Amino acid sequence: MATQASSIDRARSAERIERDIEALSGPAYTRSDEAIRRYAYTPEYRATLDYFAGELEALNFEVSYDPVGTLVARNQPAGEPAFGVGSHCDSNRNGGKYDGTMGVVTALEVCRLNAELGLELPLQLISFLEEEGSGFGQMLLGSRIVARRVTEAELREEFHAIDDDRPFWEHAEEAGYEPARWQEALRILDGLTGWIEMHIEQARVLQDTGNRIGIVNAIAGYIHADVRLEGRADHAGATPMDFRLDAAPAAAQIVLEVERLARDAGGGTVGTVGEIEFEPGLINVVPGGARLSLDTRGVVEEGFQSVARGVEAFAREVAERNGLQASYTQRQTLPVTHMDASIVGALEEAAQATGEPFMVMPSGAAHDTMCVADHVPSAMVFVPCKDGISHSPKEAAEPADAAVAAEIILNAIRLLTAPGGK
Amino acid sequence: MATQASSIDRARSAERIERDIEALSGPAYTRSDEAIRRYAYTPEYRATLDYFAGELEALNFEVSYDPVGTLVARNQPAGEPAFGVGSHCDSNRNGGKYDGTMGVVTALEVCRLNAELGLELPLQLISFLEEEGSGFGQMLLGSRIVARRVTEAELREEFHAIDDDRPFWEHAEEAGYEPARWQEALRILDGLTGWIEMHIEQARVLQDTGNRIGIVNAIAGYIHADVRLEGRADHAGATPMDFRLDAAPAAAQIVLEVERLARDAGGGTVGTVGEIEFEPGLINVVPGGARLSLDTRGVVEEGFQSVARGVEAFAREVAERNGLQASYTQRQTLPVTHMDASIVGALEEAAQATGEPFMVMPSGAAHDTMCVADHVPSAMVFVPCKDGISHSPKEAAEPADAAVAAEIILNAIRLLTAPGGK
Repeated sequence: MATQASSIDRARSAERIERDIEALSGPAYTRSDEAIRRYAYTPEYRATLDYFAGELEALNFEVSYDPVGTLVARNQPAGEPAFGVGSHCDSNRNGGKYDGTMGVVTALEVCRLNAELGLELPLQLISFLEEEGSGFGQMLLGSRIVARRVTEAELREEFHAIDDDRPFWEHAEEAGYEPARWQEALRILDGLTGWIEMHIEQARVLQDTGNRIGIVNAIAGYIHADVRLEGRADHAGATPMDFRLDAAPAAAQIVLEVERLARDAGGGTVGTVGEIEFEPGLINVVPGGARLSLDTRGVVEEGFQSVARGVEAFAREVAERNGLQASYTQRQTLPVTHMDASIVGALEEAAQATGEPFMVMPSGAAHDTMCVADHVPSAMVFVPCKDGISHSPKEAAEPADAAVAAEIILNAIRLLTAPGGK
Repeated sequence: MATQASSIDRARSAERIERDIEALSGPAYTRSDEAIRRYAYTPEYRATLDYFAGELEALNFEVSYDPVGTLVARNQPAGEPAFGVGSHCDSNRNGGKYDGTMGVVTALEVCRLNAELGLELPLQLISFLEEEGSGFGQMLLGSRIVARRVTEAELREEFHAIDDDRPFWEHAEEAGYEPARWQEALRILDGLTGWIEMHIEQARVLQDTGNRIGIVNAIAGYIHADVRLEGRADHAGATPMDFRLDAAPAAAQIVLEVERLARDAGGGTVGTVGEIEFEPGLINVVPGGARLSLDTRGVVEEGFQSVARGVEAFAREVAERNGLQASYTQRQTLPVTHMDASIVGALEEAAQATGEPFMVMPSGAAHDTMCVADHVPSAMVFVPCKDGISHSPKEAAEPADAAVAAEIILNAIRLLTAPGGK
């Protein structure tokens, strides 16, 4: 393989990637002075799409949009086989330059290298709409539309703009798209023989283990839930310890149980209590109620499922022991998305050839690739982000790492599309 | 003693107490349709003072006000010895009919019985200003002014009205008082040979133990503090358990330690975590910070002091064990206020004579009597309130219990002021 791998001028790639990212953090591309803030159907988002469209047209790609505005660019006629690369270029409302955008920029670099090196790989770049949900409060919206994981009622009526509370549908029409044809969005995946998305890691595993590249073999499934406890609010001074129905110690035990269950589940299962509230929430009142959130994830379905079951059972048990009422409500759940073994293998082989440190790892965060993987063999590549920080203007990542990722993706696609290849 | 005790028509006293309380819950006496809401320098508070002034003048009491508006009514010339009775008649912003007001009404009933029975006990009724802090956010404000537990700068500049943010001083002057003479307020305690305040219990000990009367032998001291933990906010999906500096489990351990330390301290010591916050407080972010409040009280100084010391030490220990930073900040503290043994003894004797079930107990809640007791031998009497609820329109208490309290207070004062009495 090492002899087949294209030798790439990484410094030049890193320069181009940096130039793109810096350009796209200029005032025309963000609605905030202090952060990157861009989302669907705004002038700043339009400008960002136009930037990519211009660069891709310069490479002789044909640029089009799906019925709601997801950008699709191909160096092959529509319907012909091609390999997909891309990510999203919208941002969190208080976001950084790298989350999403660096993935599209790196995909663009793959397209550039393909042209420069005369490889003639059939490629299709996608930049999905509204991954972050900053416009309409719906994460992965563009890729969920493509994968038909939404309903028409949601698009017409239920999903509203955060800014003006008007429906997604109206905004999409005003922007010149045809939401009525949303079910045709799936066709942007027609002919794709595979899909690779690059993204910043959004955690610190790569940094802390000294790896420059992560090859994602699965995207964690998750359960989001709320646990509520009901006791009795009492005067904190006048109510002896034995006369209380205090929700606080019970809530505290549940927090510790989430931690214990996640560690016991193993296999990379995680569990987090990110939200907690005591009612009425006053220093001098014994909490009569408590609510805490559960986020549990993992790439082993039984792992996070068992955490959720365990938390529900423990909440009822601790409530009963303390004379309280407990309830458990699931907000949302998604199953594990396994990446395609051939693509993961090709990425490993290509990564090995670079001589750079890399690891195979799961993604704990959700990505558009979860929706693509329903229909197309898929995988992802991670690059480190400084201290694991994302969704913040403090977000930082290295164009040099993205250049290595571009090299790996390009060579993996070569391996996969070569006659007699993997 | 039983033979000396005045025999009282409790049903008639209960009727009068009920009539007063119902009158003072009418629309002229509250700024809310849904609750009792009255505080200093409002027309509703003025009307309430006028009601008491009218009733007391009918009993030939001379009514006056201290320099900020605390009502003082005496059946003796100023400076002559008298026994003090009373409470406060302001309310919580979302309060009930009984907290405070029932104590002033019961004191008024003591004055009525004194006249009716021709006992000629020298009495002084006080209704303190702003016990609840609803007007200016400062609890026990009137009695703290009397006891000089405030500074002039606080009254002139630092204590602001919740409604319009203007200083206490301006409001007091506009209401016709002379705040510049505030230091003279202490003189309302001149000549007082003792002080008894009746109040609803604000907890459920009397109800749950089947007692109609509580005789308070000490008012709990307390410490209010905040514990802060600092770790690191991380993506809840992408950050493995071993890579986290999660503030949540450490905070949970502190909640449980507060409970354990308070129980271990014994002697009625209590400990409460009423407030908790995780930062940033999102379901999918590992908490990078946490804040929790500590309220610990008791009538044994060493008890609640040891809880506070223990919480501070434990917070540092658990933080160190988990790679976090901990800080502990005291907001406020007050020492235990012991009630006068002679007055408590006289109240016990008078309670015994009623044949009704009573108990000697501490007050976990703070009361104006804490300030009076610095200068005058003092005690308190509690009556049950339904389910321990206070500071709520759902607050309920029995006029019949208050009538028993009036009988006990009257007879205790007789015992204490009789020549050769206690």
